[in-house]
Amino acid sequence: MHLTEPPELRGYSLPLSPSGRAAMVSPPPWYFSGDVIMVEYRADPEAAAAFFPPGVDPGPDPGAAAAVFAHWHWRSETEKEADDPARNQFNEFLILLGCSAEGRPMARCPYAWVDEAIPMARGWIQGMPKQFGAVHLTHPKPIGRTGPHLAEGGVFRGVASQYGARIAKASVTLTVRGGDPPLLHTVPLVHTRHFPAWAPADEPVSQLVASEVKDVEFGEIWEGEASLHFADDLPDDLATLAPLQVGSGFVFSYAETLCHGRMLFAGEAVQG
Amino acid sequence: MHLTEPPELRGYSLPLSPSGRAAMVSPPPWYFSGDVIMVEYRADPEAAAAFFPPGVDPGPDPGAAAAVFAHWHWRSETEKEADDPARNQFNEFLILLGCSAEGRPMARCPYAWVDEAIPMARGWIQGMPKQFGAVHLTHPKPIGRTGPHLAEGGVFRGVASQYGARIAKASVTLTVRGGDPPLLHTVPLVHTRHFPAWAPADEPVSQLVASEVKDVEFGEIWEGEASLHFADDLPDDLATLAPLQVGSGFVFSYAETLCHGRMLFAGEAVQG
Amino acid sequence: MHLTEPPELRGYSLPLSPSGRAAMVSPPPWYFSGDVIMVEYRADPEAAAAFFPPGVDPGPDPGAAAAVFAHWHWRSETEKEADDPARNQFNEFLILLGCSAEGRPMARCPYAWVDEAIPMARGWIQGMPKQFGAVHLTHPKPIGRTGPHLAEGGVFRGVASQYGARIAKASVTLTVRGGDPPLLHTVPLVHTRHFPAWAPADEPVSQLVASEVKDVEFGEIWEGEASLHFADDLPDDLATLAPLQVGSGFVFSYAETLCHGRMLFAGEAVQG
Amino acid sequence: MHLTEPPELRGYSLPLSPSGRAAMVSPPPWYFSGDVIMVEYRADPEAAAAFFPPGVDPGPDPGAAAAVFAHWHWRSETEKEADDPARNQFNEFLILLGCSAEGRPMARCPYAWVDEAIPMARGWIQGMPKQFGAVHLTHPKPIGRTGPHLAEGGVFRGVASQYGARIAKASVTLTVRGGDPPLLHTVPLVHTRHFPAWAPADEPVSQLVASEVKDVEFGEIWEGEASLHFADDLPDDLATLAPLQVGSGFVFSYAETLCHGRMLFAGEAVQG
Repeated sequence: MHLTEPPELRGYSLPLSPSGRAAMVSPPPWYFSGDVIMVEYRADPEAAAAFFPPGVDPGPDPGAAAAVFAHWHWRSETEKEADDPARNQFNEFLILLGCSAEGRPMARCPYAWVDEAIPMARGWIQGMPKQFGAVHLTHPKPIGRTGPHLAEGGVFRGVASQYGARIAKASVTLTVRGGDPPLLHTVPLVHTRHFPAWAPADEPVSQLVASEVKDVEFGEIWEGEASLHFADDLPDDLATLAPLQVGSGFVFSYAETLCHGRMLFAGEAVQG
Repeated sequence: MHLTEPPELRGYSLPLSPSGRAAMVSPPPWYFSGDVIMVEYRADPEAAAAFFPPGVDPGPDPGAAAAVFAHWHWRSETEKEADDPARNQFNEFLILLGCSAEGRPMARCPYAWVDEAIPMARGWIQGMPKQFGAVHLTHPKPIGRTGPHLAEGGVFRGVASQYGARIAKASVTLTVRGGDPPLLHTVPLVHTRHFPAWAPADEPVSQLVASEVKDVEFGEIWEGEASLHFADDLPDDLATLAPLQVGSGFVFSYAETLCHGRMLFAGEAVQG
Repeated sequence: MHLTEPPELRGYSLPLSPSGRAAMVSPPPWYFSGDVIMVEYRADPEAAAAFFPPGVDPGPDPGAAAAVFAHWHWRSETEKEADDPARNQFNEFLILLGCSAEGRPMARCPYAWVDEAIPMARGWIQGMPKQFGAVHLTHPKPIGRTGPHLAEGGVFRGVASQYGARIAKASVTLTVRGGDPPLLHTVPLVHTRHFPAWAPADEPVSQLVASEVKDVEFGEIWEGEASLHFADDLPDDLATLAPLQVGSGFVFSYAETLCHGRMLFAGEAVQG
Repeated sequence: MHLTEPPELRGYSLPLSPSGRAAMVSPPPWYFSGDVIMVEYRADPEAAAAFFPPGVDPGPDPGAAAAVFAHWHWRSETEKEADDPARNQFNEFLILLGCSAEGRPMARCPYAWVDEAIPMARGWIQGMPKQFGAVHLTHPKPIGRTGPHLAEGGVFRGVASQYGARIAKASVTLTVRGGDPPLLHTVPLVHTRHFPAWAPADEPVSQLVASEVKDVEFGEIWEGEASLHFADDLPDDLATLAPLQVGSGFVFSYAETLCHGRMLFAGEAVQG
């Protein structure tokens, strides 16, 4: 028999405490404002499909993929984080794979890295497989002879590494302004919430969920020529998702409110 | 209806992948060998009790507490980590509160900090409320005029901070060798596994569990004079656990194999 | 007899190597583009004067001071850094004291912290006393419900710490746009280049120098209400420079090319 | 005309301040106690010789080299650092090349990396070309099933990286105890103190110096089978020093007091 949480200890996440204020993660909604460097690419469609759980299929464009570097400001409703710039920012690198679920286009994130612990824990809560890494990306600067300007010819770069070994790097050289947002940044994300088992007889929590967002805003979209390289000696299945062909690059600001998750109902094929 | 994990995606933890090797956390058992600096102290018994969930009571010595700094080497059964010293070590600072559950002495960990992300995630799996922080402790050195020797007069220190603000610091000046291990390091830990809800109708996972360990080894126990200070401006309920009186300090090596968790069955009083 | 650098080993800085490309610091000029959060304040005039070397006097406004947080993109002429966003950025926190040298207004930097090692070493070369610390500041975001906008009401914050202990924090709430740059960011910096002695008979290198810059650009100047707090337990003379009164805050972009230093010739009073 | 340091501002290093206590680096002597993992190897003798300045020649064993990983506790005479474990430790990775100067065997350090800023600055003062990197090495543990024991079969590893890219890794599997210390850890280090020029007419400080140490202690010497790998894509002259052949590995504790430098007088051949 599992115990429900006792009333005396409060908190949206560990650590639980008498007041609940000790919780590492504040409850959603969570507000995000970010600067994004994104490169579209083609992955091997079979390799991509191997990352889709039941209920998710490759959809109309198998092999569509993207590498996304972003710098985020975030805070929760409680504004606990609003006053501390050491706590309300993080850098992120993630992979997106185009897919379909519930009969409509979505994106699957097979890998993600962030450089702060609270965003990592928050990722696990929503089913985003965030690991801890070193992620750096160039910030736009409006003036001067270095730091790219948001203007034709500006070069924006991102690099990610983990445990002192490079994962991937990308660049976008801006050419035109004013296009549409890249498709994979406009569709819902479909995640697998997975909390490992601990007692021998337990099963892990495993739920197919979609993230529910609102207040989505895109800033001006810059498009450009892109490069994308995965490291040669990647340690696991990530290598199978390396780019076969690199497409366009994009630089833009993006904001959203992440409200909560929505459980996806599964048909018979999923449970089989 | 919740989906069970599909056979095609494997892994003990996120990220799930075709081979399962992408998992950030390898499955238990996990092996630990560590060097520990531990200071016994008296906390306010009421404040300590406010951190106990139903099923846990203050036991025979209300207010018994300890601050523990440790440097750990660890690896899983898969030995994935054995080859990488950037991955198989971490520093930890935690608080222990003496308590009783199932009618026998246990310890409750209300707060813990580690400086690596995998140990943090592994903590959440077992119900240990590990946050991310900067933890530093002195290492014993056998020779030389600095770095404490494991000998009478050797001074061992630990400091912990988070987001650039100090949490606590402690010191132990060695006086005698060969005593018994400090009590709170010899009893089982009783944790609350807590995985937050995400979809609006969901309840969080909340389980009262005890950690099951084997292969416990203590190295030589050094005892000494101790100091322990919590920072003045601690941001939440942690301040209520500050030391009223500081007891003995201990320096010792410790090893264990952490096998899995055991669900604690709750009596009526617990569910009420 | 001191050896001059042999022709076979090259490099602007250590490490010297056959090609010279191993040098940690590339030779100037160095290009900087940054985002600045700056708070003017009044320091104790006597305490400030105690940080001025011979040849530098308090000038027309004794006690004028400022706290500056900045995020910088930088590169050298060789563009070695241009391709690596892990290497061409840093955050900085520094104190400026208004002063006079050679009969004209200048600023003296008694303390500075950066979060990258190359900028630290580059600081010592020019006489800027950069130490290593953790510095975080908010970045402007053009859209969204968090991350301050460059608009009335936007709140910009900076925090600095070292060895896990807070040094200072500041905030600026934007009110008006379009004023003049804050004075202490428009005057030359007068530094003491100081390279410690090593052999017992040696004297340290000690030179009073001014930085020579060109291509100075200011972006739009936002002014606002400011707060500034130094930590209570600062470990050394820094505490004497704590704010007696806090003035206006400013948020702006700034760019310059740092060319080289200029030795200040000293009059008789300086040598006495 | 260069100014000498004014009496009013004090400090062994920047930052100078009224009391002198703001100095980032405390004056020598500096005390070190460390744990060392060292691998002897053969470098290309010509490549090694290209790193020797005038006054230094390859000596009796051209191409003799070693890779050294170490964890250090350190403090200065002032004991300013003794109380803070966040400040009195660092990890180091360095290369040593066998050479000869003044007619006797010495070692030249062409590259070194440390993970703390004060040791980096202290390196530049003594002419050791320390850069900032991530260095990790296994610590001996006396008990348990992980963390190597100082016993036959114990495996000790070191890894170093910089800006998220691997530099080198090494391992030593212990076989025998009680031999002599490895030669290159027993000879004086001959460094080039090099402080870059800043004003256009200036020459850099450039001095050939030897480090003067006392209180040298070696703990028990363990020898074993070693591996050593440099990364494939090293960015500069470091690649020329990659191992042609890997020799024995050693694990031992080491302590010394670093007193000051001694200027090497150069003969005619050196100046030619």
